[in-house]
Amino acid sequence: MKSWLSSLAVVLAVVLAGALLAARGSEGREGKEALLKAEAVFGADAASRGVDGWLDHFAPDAAIFPAGEPVIVGLGKIRDYYTRTGFSPKGLTWKPQEAFLAASGDLGYTFGTWEATGADAEGKPAVHTGKYLTVWRRQPDGAWKVAADIGNADPRKAPAH
Amino acid sequence: MKSWLSSLAVVLAVVLAGALLAARGSEGREGKEALLKAEAVFGADAASRGVDGWLDHFAPDAAIFPAGEPVIVGLGKIRDYYTRTGFSPKGLTWKPQEAFLAASGDLGYTFGTWEATGADAEGKPAVHTGKYLTVWRRQPDGAWKVAADIGNADPRKAPAH
Repeated sequence: MKSWLSSLAVVLAVVLAGALLAARGSEGREGKEALLKAEAVFGADAASRGVDGWLDHFAPDAAIFPAGEPVIVGLGKIRDYYTRTGFSPKGLTWKPQEAFLAASGDLGYTFGTWEATGADAEGKPAVHTGKYLTVWRRQPDGAWKVAADIGNADPRKAPAH
Repeated sequence: MKSWLSSLAVVLAVVLAGALLAARGSEGREGKEALLKAEAVFGADAASRGVDGWLDHFAPDAAIFPAGEPVIVGLGKIRDYYTRTGFSPKGLTWKPQEAFLAASGDLGYTFGTWEATGADAEGKPAVHTGKYLTVWRRQPDGAWKVAADIGNADPRKAPAH
Protein backbone atom coordinates (compact mmCIF):
# COMPACT_ATOMS: atom_id res chain seq x y z
CA MET A 1 0.00 0.00 0.00
CA LYS A 2 2.80 2.37 0.93
CA SER A 3 4.66 1.53 -2.28
CA TRP A 4 1.46 2.12 -4.27
CA LEU A 5 1.15 5.57 -2.67
CA SER A 6 4.79 6.39 -3.50
CA SER A 7 4.28 5.44 -7.13
CA LEU A 8 1.18 7.59 -7.27
CA ALA A 9 3.16 10.46 -5.77
CA VAL A 10 5.87 10.08 -8.41
CA VAL A 11 3.27 10.05 -11.19
CA LEU A 12 1.55 13.09 -9.66
CA ALA A 13 4.84 14.96 -9.37
CA VAL A 14 5.69 14.26 -13.02
CA VAL A 15 2.20 15.21 -14.25
CA LEU A 16 2.09 18.41 -12.22
CA ALA A 17 5.61 19.42 -13.19
CA GLY A 18 4.65 18.81 -16.81
CA ALA A 19 1.53 20.97 -16.44
CA LEU A 20 3.59 23.78 -14.91
CA LEU A 21 6.22 23.55 -17.63
CA ALA A 22 3.55 23.50 -20.33
CA ALA A 23 2.01 26.63 -18.82
CA ARG A 24 5.41 28.37 -18.76
CA GLY A 25 6.18 27.20 -22.29
CA SER A 26 3.08 28.81 -23.73
CA GLU A 27 4.46 32.13 -22.54
CA GLY A 28 7.21 31.74 -25.09
CA ARG A 29 7.58 31.86 -28.82
CA GLU A 30 5.02 29.18 -29.64
CA GLY A 31 2.27 30.92 -27.71
CA LYS A 32 3.06 34.28 -29.28
CA GLU A 33 2.92 32.75 -32.74
CA ALA A 34 -0.48 31.17 -31.99
CA LEU A 35 -1.77 34.57 -30.86
CA LEU A 36 -0.40 36.40 -33.91
CA LYS A 37 -1.89 33.70 -36.13
CA ALA A 38 -5.31 34.19 -34.47
CA GLU A 39 -4.98 37.91 -35.15
CA ALA A 40 -4.11 37.30 -38.82
CA VAL A 41 -7.14 35.01 -39.27
CA PHE A 42 -9.29 37.66 -37.54
CA GLY A 43 -8.11 40.21 -40.13
CA ALA A 44 -8.64 37.86 -43.06
CA ASP A 45 -12.16 36.91 -41.93
CA ALA A 46 -13.12 40.56 -41.38
CA ALA A 47 -11.84 41.47 -44.85
CA SER A 48 -13.64 38.64 -46.59
CA ARG A 49 -16.88 38.35 -44.58
CA GLY A 50 -17.37 41.80 -43.09
CA VAL A 51 -19.00 42.21 -39.71
CA ASP A 52 -19.94 38.50 -39.37
CA GLY A 53 -16.32 37.45 -39.96
CA TRP A 54 -15.21 40.13 -37.50
CA LEU A 55 -17.66 39.02 -34.80
CA ASP A 56 -16.66 35.35 -35.11
CA HIS A 57 -13.42 36.31 -33.33
CA PHE A 58 -15.03 37.92 -30.28
CA ALA A 59 -15.47 36.10 -26.96
CA PRO A 60 -19.06 35.86 -25.61
CA ASP A 61 -18.22 38.43 -22.89
CA ALA A 62 -16.04 40.70 -25.05
CA ALA A 63 -15.90 44.47 -24.52
CA ILE A 64 -15.60 47.22 -27.12
CA PHE A 65 -15.06 50.94 -26.53
CA PRO A 66 -16.67 53.07 -29.22
CA ALA A 67 -16.24 56.84 -28.84
CA GLY A 68 -19.31 58.61 -27.51
CA GLU A 69 -20.88 55.38 -26.16
CA PRO A 70 -20.59 53.50 -22.87
CA VAL A 71 -18.38 50.40 -22.88
CA ILE A 72 -20.34 47.71 -24.72
CA VAL A 73 -20.00 44.27 -23.11
CA GLY A 74 -21.26 40.99 -24.57
CA LEU A 75 -21.40 39.61 -28.08
CA GLY A 76 -25.16 40.21 -28.47
CA LYS A 77 -24.90 43.88 -27.48
CA ILE A 78 -21.84 44.36 -29.70
CA ARG A 79 -23.74 42.91 -32.65
CA ASP A 80 -26.71 45.21 -31.92
CA TYR A 81 -24.37 48.21 -31.81
CA TYR A 82 -22.79 47.32 -35.15
CA THR A 83 -26.23 46.81 -36.71
CA ARG A 84 -27.42 50.16 -35.37
CA THR A 85 -24.34 52.06 -36.62
CA GLY A 86 -23.82 50.10 -39.85
CA PHE A 87 -20.22 49.28 -38.88
CA SER A 88 -18.20 47.35 -41.43
CA PRO A 89 -14.57 46.27 -41.06
CA LYS A 90 -14.12 46.22 -44.84
CA GLY A 91 -11.36 48.61 -45.79
CA LEU A 92 -9.90 48.26 -42.29
CA THR A 93 -6.51 46.57 -41.94
CA TRP A 94 -4.22 46.33 -38.96
CA LYS A 95 -0.72 45.20 -38.14
CA PRO A 96 0.28 43.83 -34.74
CA GLN A 97 3.56 45.16 -33.39
CA GLU A 98 3.85 42.96 -30.28
CA ALA A 99 2.14 39.99 -28.64
CA PHE A 100 2.41 38.94 -24.99
CA LEU A 101 0.95 36.02 -23.05
CA ALA A 102 0.28 35.18 -19.42
CA ALA A 103 2.35 32.31 -18.00
CA SER A 104 -0.85 30.23 -17.91
CA GLY A 105 -1.40 30.78 -21.63
CA ASP A 106 -5.08 31.70 -21.20
CA LEU A 107 -4.76 35.47 -21.57
CA GLY A 108 -2.69 37.61 -23.90
CA TYR A 109 -2.59 40.94 -25.65
CA THR A 110 -1.48 42.42 -28.93
CA PHE A 111 -1.10 46.00 -30.07
CA GLY A 112 -0.23 47.81 -33.24
CA THR A 113 -1.50 50.18 -35.88
CA TRP A 114 -4.63 50.23 -38.03
CA GLU A 115 -5.48 51.89 -41.31
CA ALA A 116 -8.94 52.42 -42.78
CA THR A 117 -9.72 53.54 -46.27
CA GLY A 118 -12.95 55.43 -46.61
CA ALA A 119 -14.18 58.81 -47.68
CA ASP A 120 -13.72 62.29 -46.25
CA ALA A 121 -16.56 64.75 -45.56
CA GLU A 122 -16.64 65.70 -49.25
CA GLY A 123 -16.81 62.08 -50.41
CA LYS A 124 -13.20 61.98 -51.61
CA PRO A 125 -11.12 58.88 -50.80
CA ALA A 126 -9.41 59.29 -47.43
CA VAL A 127 -7.14 57.15 -45.28
CA HIS A 128 -7.51 57.19 -41.51
CA THR A 129 -4.90 55.73 -39.19
CA GLY A 130 -4.56 54.93 -35.52
CA LYS A 131 -3.44 52.42 -32.94
CA TYR A 132 -5.14 49.60 -31.09
CA LEU A 133 -4.80 47.34 -28.07
CA THR A 134 -6.53 43.94 -28.05
CA VAL A 135 -6.81 41.57 -25.10
CA TRP A 136 -7.28 37.92 -26.08
CA ARG A 137 -8.70 35.12 -23.97
CA ARG A 138 -8.29 31.47 -24.78
CA GLN A 139 -11.65 29.75 -24.96
CA PRO A 140 -12.53 26.32 -23.51
CA ASP A 141 -12.03 24.82 -27.00
CA GLY A 142 -8.50 26.30 -27.23
CA ALA A 143 -9.36 29.06 -29.72
CA TRP A 144 -8.10 32.59 -29.02
CA LYS A 145 -10.91 35.14 -29.03
CA VAL A 146 -10.99 38.90 -28.49
CA ALA A 147 -11.90 39.79 -24.89
CA ALA A 148 -11.42 43.55 -25.20
CA ASP A 149 -10.62 45.67 -28.22
CA ILE A 150 -9.98 49.40 -28.27
CA GLY A 151 -8.47 51.78 -30.77
CA ASN A 152 -7.80 55.44 -31.06
CA ALA A 153 -7.40 57.61 -34.15
CA ASP A 154 -4.57 59.86 -35.20
CA PRO A 155 -5.55 63.48 -35.80
CA ARG A 156 -6.54 64.04 -39.41
CA LYS A 157 -3.73 65.51 -41.46
CA ALA A 158 -4.57 68.57 -43.51
CA PRO A 159 -5.15 67.37 -47.09
CA ALA A 160 -2.48 68.30 -49.65
CA HIS A 161 -3.60 71.04 -52.04
CA MET B 1 17.63 5.51 -1.15
CA LYS B 2 14.37 4.44 -2.77
CA SER B 3 12.39 5.63 0.24
CA TRP B 4 14.27 8.93 0.12
CA LEU B 5 13.21 9.33 -3.52
CA SER B 6 9.58 8.55 -2.70
CA SER B 7 9.53 11.13 0.07
CA LEU B 8 11.01 13.68 -2.28
CA ALA B 9 8.34 12.81 -4.85
CA VAL B 10 5.58 13.31 -2.26
CA VAL B 11 7.03 16.67 -1.24
CA LEU B 12 7.35 17.69 -4.91
CA ALA B 13 3.76 16.66 -5.66
CA VAL B 14 2.44 18.67 -2.72
CA VAL B 15 4.54 21.74 -3.58
CA LEU B 16 3.56 21.65 -7.25
CA ALA B 17 -0.11 21.07 -6.50
CA GLY B 18 0.05 24.03 -4.10
CA ALA B 19 1.65 26.22 -6.77
CA LEU B 20 -1.04 25.28 -9.28
CA LEU B 21 -3.84 25.91 -6.79
CA ALA B 22 -2.31 29.25 -5.82
CA ALA B 23 -2.17 30.25 -9.48
CA ARG B 24 -5.83 29.29 -10.01
CA GLY B 25 -6.88 31.07 -6.82
CA SER B 26 -5.46 34.39 -7.98
CA GLU B 27 -7.93 34.29 -10.87
CA GLY B 28 -10.72 34.82 -8.39
CA ARG B 29 -12.02 37.59 -6.24
CA GLU B 30 -8.82 38.20 -4.29
CA GLY B 31 -6.78 38.76 -7.44
CA LYS B 32 -9.35 41.15 -8.88
CA GLU B 33 -9.36 43.14 -5.67
CA ALA B 34 -5.56 43.40 -5.72
CA LEU B 35 -5.69 44.67 -9.30
CA LEU B 36 -8.42 47.22 -8.56
CA LYS B 37 -6.46 48.34 -5.50
CA ALA B 38 -3.34 48.84 -7.68
CA GLU B 39 -5.45 50.93 -10.05
CA ALA B 40 -6.81 53.06 -7.18
CA VAL B 41 -3.27 53.71 -5.87
CA PHE B 42 -2.19 54.57 -9.44
CA GLY B 43 -4.96 57.21 -9.58
CA ALA B 44 -4.15 58.61 -6.14
CA ASP B 45 -0.42 58.88 -6.91
CA ALA B 46 -1.08 60.56 -10.25
CA ALA B 47 -3.43 63.07 -8.59
CA SER B 48 -1.01 63.92 -5.79
CA ARG B 49 2.38 63.70 -7.54
CA GLY B 50 1.62 64.36 -11.19
CA VAL B 51 3.63 62.69 -13.91
CA ASP B 52 6.17 61.14 -11.48
CA GLY B 53 3.39 59.50 -9.48
CA TRP B 54 1.81 58.36 -12.75
CA LEU B 55 5.04 56.85 -14.09
CA ASP B 56 5.76 54.95 -10.85
CA HIS B 57 2.98 52.58 -11.88
CA PHE B 58 4.35 51.70 -15.32
CA ALA B 59 6.34 48.51 -16.02
CA PRO B 60 9.84 48.97 -17.51
CA ASP B 61 8.61 47.71 -20.90
CA ALA B 62 5.20 49.42 -20.83
CA ALA B 63 3.52 50.69 -23.99
CA ILE B 64 1.41 53.82 -24.48
CA PHE B 65 -0.58 54.85 -27.55
CA PRO B 66 -0.77 58.61 -27.96
CA ALA B 67 -2.75 59.86 -30.96
CA GLY B 68 -0.58 61.03 -33.84
CA GLU B 69 2.52 59.21 -32.54
CA PRO B 70 3.89 55.70 -33.01
CA VAL B 71 3.38 53.28 -30.10
CA ILE B 72 5.84 54.34 -27.38
CA VAL B 73 7.45 51.36 -25.64
CA GLY B 74 9.70 51.52 -22.56
CA LEU B 75 9.61 53.65 -19.43
CA GLY B 76 12.48 55.92 -20.56
CA LYS B 77 10.83 56.73 -23.88
CA ILE B 78 7.47 57.26 -22.20
CA ARG B 79 9.07 59.72 -19.77
CA ASP B 80 10.76 61.54 -22.68
CA TYR B 81 7.43 61.79 -24.48
CA TYR B 82 5.68 63.22 -21.42
CA THR B 83 8.50 65.72 -20.91
CA ARG B 84 8.33 66.79 -24.56
CA THR B 85 4.56 67.22 -24.55
CA GLY B 86 4.20 68.56 -21.00
CA PHE B 87 1.70 65.84 -20.10
CA SER B 88 0.23 66.00 -16.62
CA PRO B 89 -2.32 63.59 -15.17
CA LYS B 90 -3.57 66.26 -12.75
CA GLY B 91 -7.25 66.86 -13.38
CA LEU B 92 -7.54 63.36 -14.86
CA THR B 93 -9.63 60.82 -12.99
CA TRP B 94 -10.79 57.39 -14.05
CA LYS B 95 -13.12 54.66 -12.85
CA PRO B 96 -12.56 50.98 -13.60
CA GLN B 97 -15.66 49.09 -14.64
CA GLU B 98 -14.19 45.57 -14.75
CA ALA B 99 -11.00 43.71 -13.86
CA PHE B 100 -9.89 40.31 -15.19
CA LEU B 101 -6.86 38.13 -14.44
CA ALA B 102 -5.05 35.28 -16.14
CA ALA B 103 -5.20 31.93 -14.31
CA SER B 104 -1.49 32.34 -13.52
CA GLY B 105 -2.14 35.69 -11.84
CA ASP B 106 0.72 37.44 -13.67
CA LEU B 107 -1.36 39.31 -16.26
CA GLY B 108 -4.65 41.15 -16.03
CA TYR B 109 -6.65 43.98 -17.49
CA THR B 110 -9.04 46.67 -16.40
CA PHE B 111 -11.23 49.01 -18.37
CA GLY B 112 -13.53 51.90 -17.66
CA THR B 113 -14.14 55.58 -18.19
CA TRP B 114 -11.97 58.66 -17.68
CA GLU B 115 -12.74 62.32 -17.18
CA ALA B 116 -10.36 65.23 -17.52
CA THR B 117 -11.01 68.77 -16.46
CA GLY B 118 -9.15 71.37 -18.48
CA ALA B 119 -9.86 74.30 -20.72
CA ASP B 120 -11.47 74.61 -24.12
CA ALA B 121 -9.97 76.50 -27.10
CA GLU B 122 -11.20 79.79 -25.61
CA GLY B 123 -9.71 79.07 -22.18
CA LYS B 124 -13.08 78.33 -20.56
CA PRO B 125 -13.30 75.33 -18.19
CA ALA B 126 -14.13 72.17 -20.12
CA VAL B 127 -14.62 68.52 -19.24
CA HIS B 128 -13.41 65.82 -21.60
CA THR B 129 -14.48 62.20 -21.26
CA GLY B 130 -13.54 58.87 -22.76
CA LYS B 131 -12.79 55.23 -22.11
CA TYR B 132 -9.62 53.26 -21.47
CA LEU B 133 -8.19 49.76 -21.46
CA THR B 134 -5.17 48.96 -19.28
CA VAL B 135 -3.16 45.73 -19.28
CA TRP B 136 -1.34 45.01 -16.01
CA ARG B 137 1.65 42.75 -15.48
CA ARG B 138 2.73 41.50 -12.08
CA GLN B 139 6.35 42.36 -11.45
CA PRO B 140 8.97 40.05 -9.88
CA ASP B 141 8.40 41.84 -6.53
CA GLY B 142 4.64 41.09 -6.71
CA ALA B 143 3.56 44.66 -7.53
CA TRP B 144 1.06 45.19 -10.36
CA LYS B 145 2.34 47.63 -12.97
CA VAL B 146 0.84 48.98 -16.20
CA ALA B 147 2.08 47.03 -19.25
CA ALA B 148 -0.09 48.78 -21.84
CA ASP B 149 -2.45 51.72 -21.44
CA ILE B 150 -4.69 53.18 -24.13
CA GLY B 151 -7.63 55.54 -24.11
CA ASN B 152 -9.94 57.14 -26.58
CA ALA B 153 -11.96 60.31 -26.29
CA ASP B 154 -15.67 60.90 -26.73
CA PRO B 155 -16.60 63.45 -29.38
CA ARG B 156 -16.81 66.94 -27.86
CA LYS B 157 -20.35 67.95 -27.09
CA ALA B 158 -21.47 71.28 -28.45
CA PRO B 159 -21.23 73.76 -25.56
CA ALA B 160 -24.51 75.06 -24.14
CA HIS B 161 -25.24 78.67 -25.13
